[in-house]
Amino acid sequence: MTATKHASSWSTPPRDALRVGHGFHLRDVDPESTPGFDAGKKHAERELAAGVPTLSELQERLFAASTQGAPDAVLLVLQAMDTAGKGGIVRHVVGAVDPQGVRHYAFKKPTPEELAHDFLWRVESQVPAGGQIGVFDRSHYEDVLIGRVRQLADAAEIERRYGAINDFEEGLVGRGVRVVKVMLQISADEQKARLSERLDRPDKYWKYNPGDVDERELWPAYQEAYQTVFERTSTALAPWHVVPANHKWYARIAVQRLLLDALEGIDPQWPAADYDIAVERARLAAT
Amino acid sequence: MTATKHASSWSTPPRDALRVGHGFHLRDVDPESTPGFDAGKKHAERELAAGVPTLSELQERLFAASTQGAPDAVLLVLQAMDTAGKGGIVRHVVGAVDPQGVRHYAFKKPTPEELAHDFLWRVESQVPAGGQIGVFDRSHYEDVLIGRVRQLADAAEIERRYGAINDFEEGLVGRGVRVVKVMLQISADEQKARLSERLDRPDKYWKYNPGDVDERELWPAYQEAYQTVFERTSTALAPWHVVPANHKWYARIAVQRLLLDALEGIDPQWPAADYDIAVERARLAAT
Repeated sequence: MTATKHASSWSTPPRDALRVGHGFHLRDVDPESTPGFDAGKKHAERELAAGVPTLSELQERLFAASTQGAPDAVLLVLQAMDTAGKGGIVRHVVGAVDPQGVRHYAFKKPTPEELAHDFLWRVESQVPAGGQIGVFDRSHYEDVLIGRVRQLADAAEIERRYGAINDFEEGLVGRGVRVVKVMLQISADEQKARLSERLDRPDKYWKYNPGDVDERELWPAYQEAYQTVFERTSTALAPWHVVPANHKWYARIAVQRLLLDALEGIDPQWPAADYDIAVERARLAAT
Repeated sequence: MTATKHASSWSTPPRDALRVGHGFHLRDVDPESTPGFDAGKKHAERELAAGVPTLSELQERLFAASTQGAPDAVLLVLQAMDTAGKGGIVRHVVGAVDPQGVRHYAFKKPTPEELAHDFLWRVESQVPAGGQIGVFDRSHYEDVLIGRVRQLADAAEIERRYGAINDFEEGLVGRGVRVVKVMLQISADEQKARLSERLDRPDKYWKYNPGDVDERELWPAYQEAYQTVFERTSTALAPWHVVPANHKWYARIAVQRLLLDALEGIDPQWPAADYDIAVERARLAAT
């Protein structure tokens, strides 16, 4: 490819350093840590900038390949407690690529129509098409997170959903969608500081919602619900990555690297001409 | 606002220099020209970069205001002959803002289902919601451009559509959507050079389509169809702007400036807190 590979500062790539495997426990993750990356903030900013042309070219190749029928796509699933930095990932990592190739969808509280269907109904319609990078800003995992913590469904239904999610994601992978699952993990103290900042700054008031404190009071229950999510749905085909996120700069390079890995795994190629180049040159010359 | 206003190099703003008014004729537009901007490419690149923080903050304010019900949105309608640079506008101008606030939609050849409805049916569903910047990459105008040139509908139906478009856009403006209509005008020679480049570069083959030459052969008919579009649909509420586009750097700063004007016209404000700040501080402190 044209974009030159830059020397990376990762000692261990995030796909290894952050992947949820057997014996993982969320309480063991230090939100202040920067696994696999010891170089600090300044290097991280350079790393992020250096990744942009590569990400951008890979996205264009992915899109180009889809115009001749390649089914490959990437789906970034973002989950986190409030203020953990999902928005910053979308803006600073995903925002670096051509908006034509990105499909961002923020899942909100389900509507009555959505609730009348299976929980995956509204999710299916947002799956990225071939050539796209999809971003789920919250996702079907809310149905086993807030769904469990707030008992929005009975226990048997919650149980059923873990298996349904695994089947759904296996189906995605089978049709060419690489699923990159990311949970941004901040500490309770860091959340407090970030919520507090929103109450201090008039340009941040709109980001604050009294319900955020209600959810915050359920912190231990959410951590437990996440732990169960990891145990039940971190599969070989679609593993979870828990990204320590007290340092925004770390979370951003980690997610960028995970996206780069997914795209490099696809290794999309510029499609060959599906027309006769010499004939077209002659036709064009005649105009 | 926080973003500082930079000294602009425009002698006449694009909203005046490029607006289609009475007596306009497309043949009078020199695609090589740079109306209102005499400073050249280097200054244009600086101008584009300088506009990014302002555009970005205005977009965030627009989005923030919508969370408390403000209906305001912006719709950028992009029309042009092939290779004129629509994609570059999306990537380099629109791509500078948060993808969460952008809704990009590329209109393709209508599907049989879409054709079974009125031509505006598929367009209505893509209108940006309050808080969004929508981009129509091609648009309902195709139905009076290719629709007319290729006689895809009879003359009476084409005639009807101009009025229907004006009514539709008047409705949009009435509900808070600022409509920014842009036609990028390149010369036939410039198009030939750009198509030719696509046949020379393996990373561009996928952007070339033999049908592009068929359309190119109808250049005069398209120019005529555009002229009629301008005469019939450049209204006071939703005027057209014809942007000379042989110089990509000019087209980009011109469209950025038109977007900035639309957003500055809305002048979105950070919403006030719709909760009691002191109460929330206390609740948060107690957690």
